[in-house]
Amino acid sequence: MVRACVTGGAGFIGSGLVDRLSAAGVQVAVLDNLRTGRREFLDAALARPGVRFVEGDVLDPAALDDALQGCDWVFHLQANADVRDGLKHPRWDLEQNTIATAGVLEGMRAHGISRIAFTSTGSIYGEPEVIPTPEDAPFPVQTSLYGASKAACEGLIAAYAAGYGFTGVIFRLVSILGERYTHGHLIDFYRALKRDPTRLRVLGDGRQRKSYLYVQDCLDAMLALCERHRDEAGAHIYNLGRDETLTVAESVAILCEHLAVAPQVEHTGGARGWVGDSPHIHLDTARVRASGWHPRLTIAQAAVRTLRWLDANEYAWREPAVATWR
Amino acid sequence: MVRACVTGGAGFIGSGLVDRLSAAGVQVAVLDNLRTGRREFLDAALARPGVRFVEGDVLDPAALDDALQGCDWVFHLQANADVRDGLKHPRWDLEQNTIATAGVLEGMRAHGISRIAFTSTGSIYGEPEVIPTPEDAPFPVQTSLYGASKAACEGLIAAYAAGYGFTGVIFRLVSILGERYTHGHLIDFYRALKRDPTRLRVLGDGRQRKSYLYVQDCLDAMLALCERHRDEAGAHIYNLGRDETLTVAESVAILCEHLAVAPQVEHTGGARGWVGDSPHIHLDTARVRASGWHPRLTIAQAAVRTLRWLDANEYAWREPAVATWR
Repeated sequence: MVRACVTGGAGFIGSGLVDRLSAAGVQVAVLDNLRTGRREFLDAALARPGVRFVEGDVLDPAALDDALQGCDWVFHLQANADVRDGLKHPRWDLEQNTIATAGVLEGMRAHGISRIAFTSTGSIYGEPEVIPTPEDAPFPVQTSLYGASKAACEGLIAAYAAGYGFTGVIFRLVSILGERYTHGHLIDFYRALKRDPTRLRVLGDGRQRKSYLYVQDCLDAMLALCERHRDEAGAHIYNLGRDETLTVAESVAILCEHLAVAPQVEHTGGARGWVGDSPHIHLDTARVRASGWHPRLTIAQAAVRTLRWLDANEYAWREPAVATWR
Repeated sequence: MVRACVTGGAGFIGSGLVDRLSAAGVQVAVLDNLRTGRREFLDAALARPGVRFVEGDVLDPAALDDALQGCDWVFHLQANADVRDGLKHPRWDLEQNTIATAGVLEGMRAHGISRIAFTSTGSIYGEPEVIPTPEDAPFPVQTSLYGASKAACEGLIAAYAAGYGFTGVIFRLVSILGERYTHGHLIDFYRALKRDPTRLRVLGDGRQRKSYLYVQDCLDAMLALCERHRDEAGAHIYNLGRDETLTVAESVAILCEHLAVAPQVEHTGGARGWVGDSPHIHLDTARVRASGWHPRLTIAQAAVRTLRWLDANEYAWREPAVATWR
């Protein structure tokens, strides 16, 4: 890997990836529209030689073209990651995820780049019958526009791999925790309790059970697997998660202990936090573990790191990041 | 079913559907851009009261809006069906299939229509490990842009079903044969042998083994299953095919016998006819058969009907239909 383009490189996972790549001597072009990404997250990386920032959207051909110059890998992370409000804005997932990914793939073809790493999601399994859910689970029925759009992106990448000899490394992520965490129920709850520590409104019944992974553990796996498959055309698909889960009620407990608060918890009720929410996400990670990877932090440890980072970086939660792209 | 919109309603399967619906007293709005559809195929239907033709593309909002007026069902058949040349024009499957279907779904929401029947394809299974391939086969890896785009459409429909209470009836078709057949290797070979009966060029090694279904058998299943699920919100997914297969060499033999020719057959070689071709398509049809449906014609019978129709309708093969949409 000589020169990589990271779309969404100013975001939570993306900026961590840019740090890791640039620290390893890879030249990096960061493409980010700064809708949910933050310039602050790039401060350290931009101080290194060989890192440059293209402020723009993957849907803008000129910005994409600029960012792809001379690259041998693309890490395509930019996306509409707001699974919850997909039904309010059904075009967003289509445009920011499906169409944007098609554009990135065409841009790569135009530039003669054939290696792409893609952050997909455990949401593409819908509400799976098999839990923990392996990569070759029964053909899922989509339950959210977000999941549907990420599945569409995976299909495009696999078809480019089959048709044009691309190497596509696809990561189906659980929720990621850690430094620079900007989006998810933990920051929502943290912000709510900072505003009013006496009460907390929780979507659903609090028993939704999900898996989480620490961002550096996630990046360890991504970087190792890209290296492993660098010369293997085809689609290489990996679940990334931990073999443990946490209920929403348990994460509320960790948060309340951390903040030393005891709010009245109100549940909105129902097994799902919202329409399309999967009440149980637990991915089978046998495939990635067989590659030699093991996560270092437990979910609870990752949650505490996240909370400490929020404590120390008030800017990141005081003004909510713009959650959507327009 | 009172009033149905059939996109692609001047095409091979679509026009057969329009005939069946209108004969049953359903009012039908046909939306077709006549790129591969043929006005001749609508002659009988347009003579019936309650059938109207909107010449236009599903991607044209005004045409779509016109066609959707007052409908309670949408049969969304319009698509780029050219699986073979997807790699030459990677935007076509994205635009004509994925984006077009997203537009149809949004149009339906705007019109308060919540029932959609969709013609998907066995190509979405890629090169499956399980043959015959059931609907809940292991999560496939896409091998063609066509398959990827149809899988993306299915995901959108399922997400609309989960999120907006739509009823989506999804049919994964094998190759369809019968009257008004306009696209596929049988018409390609027929046309080639009419031009030169002494030689025939066959893509691949001729041993590709595929399943086929007679168009009226296909329509029987589609109509019965739409009726069955009309009041059941959700995604209802059915393979439609026959529990038999034919090799390309066997269909060449049927064709040569029909035309009474004995060409020198040249194979281009390789297990696949083209990149992304699945050398073995055989869908498990236990689910549709459990609904009481049984196909009436064997593949050989369907092939002979197809050839007799070509004999009697020279206009349909003498000038090749425009195979692509622009």
